[in-house]
Parts: sequence; structure tokens; C-alpha cells
Amino acid sequence: MKKLINKPENVVKESLQGMALAHANLIKVSYNPYFITRSNTPTEGKVGIVSGGGSGHEPLHGGFVGFGMLDAACPGEVFTSPTPDQMQAATLAVNGGAGVLHIVKNYTGDVLNFEMAADLARADGIEVESVVTNDDVAVKDSLYTAGRRGVGVTVLAEKIAGAAAEQKRPLKEVADICRKVNNYGRSMGMALTSCTVPAAGKPTFDLPDDEMEIGIGIHGEPGRSRMKVKTAAEITEMLANPIIEDLPFKSGDSVLAFVNGMGGTPLIELYIIYNELNKICAGRGIKIVRNLVGSYITSLDMAGCSITLVKMDDELIKLWDAPVNTPGLRWGI
Amino acid sequence: MKKLINKPENVVKESLQGMALAHANLIKVSYNPYFITRSNTPTEGKVGIVSGGGSGHEPLHGGFVGFGMLDAACPGEVFTSPTPDQMQAATLAVNGGAGVLHIVKNYTGDVLNFEMAADLARADGIEVESVVTNDDVAVKDSLYTAGRRGVGVTVLAEKIAGAAAEQKRPLKEVADICRKVNNYGRSMGMALTSCTVPAAGKPTFDLPDDEMEIGIGIHGEPGRSRMKVKTAAEITEMLANPIIEDLPFKSGDSVLAFVNGMGGTPLIELYIIYNELNKICAGRGIKIVRNLVGSYITSLDMAGCSITLVKMDDELIKLWDAPVNTPGLRWGI
Repeated sequence: MKKLINKPENVVKESLQGMALAHANLIKVSYNPYFITRSNTPTEGKVGIVSGGGSGHEPLHGGFVGFGMLDAACPGEVFTSPTPDQMQAATLAVNGGAGVLHIVKNYTGDVLNFEMAADLARADGIEVESVVTNDDVAVKDSLYTAGRRGVGVTVLAEKIAGAAAEQKRPLKEVADICRKVNNYGRSMGMALTSCTVPAAGKPTFDLPDDEMEIGIGIHGEPGRSRMKVKTAAEITEMLANPIIEDLPFKSGDSVLAFVNGMGGTPLIELYIIYNELNKICAGRGIKIVRNLVGSYITSLDMAGCSITLVKMDDELIKLWDAPVNTPGLRWGI
Repeated sequence: MKKLINKPENVVKESLQGMALAHANLIKVSYNPYFITRSNTPTEGKVGIVSGGGSGHEPLHGGFVGFGMLDAACPGEVFTSPTPDQMQAATLAVNGGAGVLHIVKNYTGDVLNFEMAADLARADGIEVESVVTNDDVAVKDSLYTAGRRGVGVTVLAEKIAGAAAEQKRPLKEVADICRKVNNYGRSMGMALTSCTVPAAGKPTFDLPDDEMEIGIGIHGEPGRSRMKVKTAAEITEMLANPIIEDLPFKSGDSVLAFVNGMGGTPLIELYIIYNELNKICAGRGIKIVRNLVGSYITSLDMAGCSITLVKMDDELIKLWDAPVNTPGLRWGI
């Protein structure tokens, strides 16, 4: 295993320490239990938004804490759900009196623990709503998941719901907007290489030198199929077509197109995929009105990419364009 | 070779097409010859800033075209200098009547071609100044380089000189500020894996499964030494100490600390390196007043990192903090 780490058991802690130092103007980190909040939390009268999940997907979620996006994030160990006490503590910390929204990727551990945390927070008198993202069209059930996995749409839902919360909209409305992004969004990913979990010390799965896996999960969970590596054009088709046909996205639709790197993929390749995605959307009469290209929901050092499309209306576009100031996404500030 | 590409010979063109589509509000791409400018170039009365170099280092340089940074970038083929006609065309395109600054990484091809382009532009009546960056302390001469290589400091020089140009300062002043950043900056990098140039189809060099290379160049040029992979703490020492001792950075100095990923390195690891760098600087009384952590000057899919320190004064800090709006760096806008 080749990684820029000290001891595997200290990866999450030391990475959080580095993050806290690098972004001291935006965030602060609590270590017992682990959670990241804005440096100036809570915001009175604003819905607090908490997300979280296993580490190894950076900048998701901690990198999206800040104005216009999350109020707090709970990092678990690598590819391991955070615990209810983390989520409860984060929920208490960001409660500004208008309730708290939990944004949860659909993995069994995350869902159960966030449910328990919501119950605990309600017992503390905090109103909590939860939205579970489940946008991955690759497989119906999976390792760690009943139903579809939550992947790329989570980034976009955090941004858009975050903007709605910043406008001091009520909890129910912010949750409904978050659900709308999830309902309007579909994703699929692929891998050229496996990732290596530090504590395991070896690749999560074996992928021969000339093969790729289509439909991979962000923890290296099995996807749809393995095959010889194809061209960027063919790979983009294999990801985009099932996404488009699932919702379905139709001619005349406006979409946000998100091309995401898995952690070990250079930007030069992501732009090639984005170029191919434009051709496919144009060919089907689907208009890309906003986009995001980069590594935002990763799988440690995995080489590969995912595509997410979200059907956009004027309300969602306005919320997407609203100012955001986090370590991982920043504009309009 | 596993890459998200179509034909190796089309990588640069298709990546530029994707970039143009993704960032149409900020940049436009000319294809004959290749150069990227701001969408609204030239800016009358402002010094134009042009940089460029081989592709494969994204987001450098094209991702730094936009308000507060570059006016144009010239991408060569992968790891190959752009040609004088690209640089001349870019220089003409961004000339707003106040002259043009060329920021050139110290590689023999880049330096020669930018010199020729400067002569051609001067013959067209444009005042041109050139600054060559040469911040890499790893080796004195190298493949493709007489003297030290230009690496991480280039990103920071482009940001800081870009801010000075935005204030409509005269060409000589903008060039002097750029030189100051280079003179005050030092860098060193390391690799856990080789990169693979698409046209070559195989790794640039062989690095055994348990070894790393210290002092690597951004084209996979040989560094100082190879050894078994060490901990993040040891690696950070091996990079930071030669940097600190070279300038030298002294107790009481304020610095900008830049931890850069080489393209195949996940963010979670870069934050661990940044955490270690903070300890080293604190131990020597060096104060980190600004930082940048992420993959900004890459080497295709290489796994590894580099560290850059720049000694900062009030003027440089103010210019660093100034608004910037490019595909690769964005704040204050």
C-alpha cells in the first residue's frame, strides 16, 4: 500500500486536523465525538443542515460545511458510518431554533444511525427532517444498501438545500427542495482501478490491467459488469444512457451535468468525459444549463468517474447559483 | 494504459473542448493555434498576463485564466512546450495597450519558445516582460532544464501577479511582483507512482510497489533519491526541510504554504501532509498566514505531492486575498 499517511488508524483524525488548520476561517472541528461545523454556528432562525458518512469521499461531506451549504458534517472512519452520538452532537450544535435537516446517503448503516440520531435530537426538543439520497441507477440493492445507493446527487442536494436554508425558509420547505433534487437526479459511476482502504492495506477488489468496472459504488461495491477498457466516448455512453432512460430525461429538459472524479483521476480526463456528455445530451435534445466538473465525491484513490444529471427548473437554478463559501465549493462570495 | 480518453493524439483538443463547454462564462478557446483567453479579452489599460506549457498539469495553466489571474494560457501537447505562434497569438489577443507579461516555467523548450514569442510580439509593437519561475530545490539541472525547474510557485505567482495587473499597475511593477514571488518561493515534490503519458501508453518510469521517489519533477524527471515508502511525517520532513534551508525561511517569517497533489492523490492524504507541514513550520517559528491545499499543478495520474512555501509580506498577502474568478481558483467574487 502506497499512501501519504502515518498510521492507518489515525488517517481520519490527522486529516481532520489538517483540514481544521487549512480552513480555520470557515470551519471548526470537534474531536469528541468527531464533527465539523461552521466556525460561527449556529445561525439563529436558520434551518441547520447536517450530513455525514464514512470518510474517504473528500471533499464530501466536511468540505461542504460553510455558508450556503452544510452547517455540520459527521465523518465516520473510512467507508464506515458515523455513529448516532456524532450526529446528535452535530444536530445540537447547529440548531438555531428552526429545526435541522439530515441529508443521508442511502447506505444501511448511515440510514439507521441517522434515524437514531434524529430520535435523540427530537427527544431534546429539536425538530428534525431527513432526506435519504438514492440516485445511483447502477444496481437495485448492493453491499451495505437496500435500494439504490446515494452518490453524486448528494453534493448537489447539499448545495441547493443549503441555499434554500440560507434564505431562512422553513424546515419543511428546505427538506422538500432537497427531496426534489434527489427525485430529479440520477447517477452512475465506473472504475479503472480499485481503491485501497488504509486499514485493509490492499486493494478492495482486483481489476485486471486492461479491464474496467461499470456501475461501481463509491466503496468499491460491485457494479453492473466488467469489461475491457473502452474509449471515453463509449464509457460516457455506458454511464449516461442508463441515467437518461431511468428518470427519464427528455428532449427539452434543462439539466445540471456533474462529471465527478473518483479521487485518482486527473482533471484532463474529466473534461474529456464532459465533452462526450455534451454530445450525448445535445443528441437527445437535453440542455445542460449548469455544470460541475471535478472530484467532489471520491472513493479514496480510485481512478474512475461518475456522471450525475439533475433536471433543473428556475427555482433550482437560482438556488444553485446562490453564493457558497466552503472549502470544497466557493462562488458568489 | 487505463485512461478516460479516446485517441491519445486527441487528448489535448478534446479536453480543451470540454473545458470550453464547462466554463463558457469565463473562458474561450481558440483552436488554430491553441490558446485559452478570458471570454472578454483584452482588458483595456491592463497588463495582459500570458502563461503556458505542456498539457498534463491541469488545472495549470488554462484553469487559471480569468479575472484576477491570467489573461491567456497556451497549452502544448502533453509534457511538450507550446510553440511560439501560440504564444504570439495569445499575446496579441490579450494586449490591452499596457503591455504583456509572460510567466514561464523554467524548462528549456518553454523558455526558448517564449523568448521567440516575446521577440515576435515586440516586433508587433507590444511591450513584453518575461518572468521565469525556478523554485524547485530538488535538483540543480534536470532533463529539459538548465538550472532549477519551475513548479508550484508558478500557481502562486500567477495569482499574485494577476491581482497586481487587475489594479492596473504598470508592466514593470507587475513583473517585479511576479519575480518577488519566485524569489521568495521554494518547492519540492515526491511521487508514489509514475505518470503515464497517453501517447507513450506506459509509465514514464518504473517505481517498485514499495518505493517512492523524492524530488521528482512534474514530468516524471528523476529526483534526488528513491527509497522505501515512509510515513507522511517523514515524507513531509524530507520535502519541507530542504525548502526551508534553501531560501532560508527563518523564525518569524510569514509564509504561504501550498500542499499540492500530483493528480492521482486524494484530498484526504493532502490534508495529512498539511497537518505535518504545520508542525514543522511551528517547530521552526515559521508562521503560516495563508495556505492552499489541493491538486493545482499536476502530473497526469501521478500519485504524490509537492510542497511550496513563499515568504509573504503585507503587499503579497493583500494581492493573494484579492478576488479571483477562474475555473481552478475562485474567491471574493
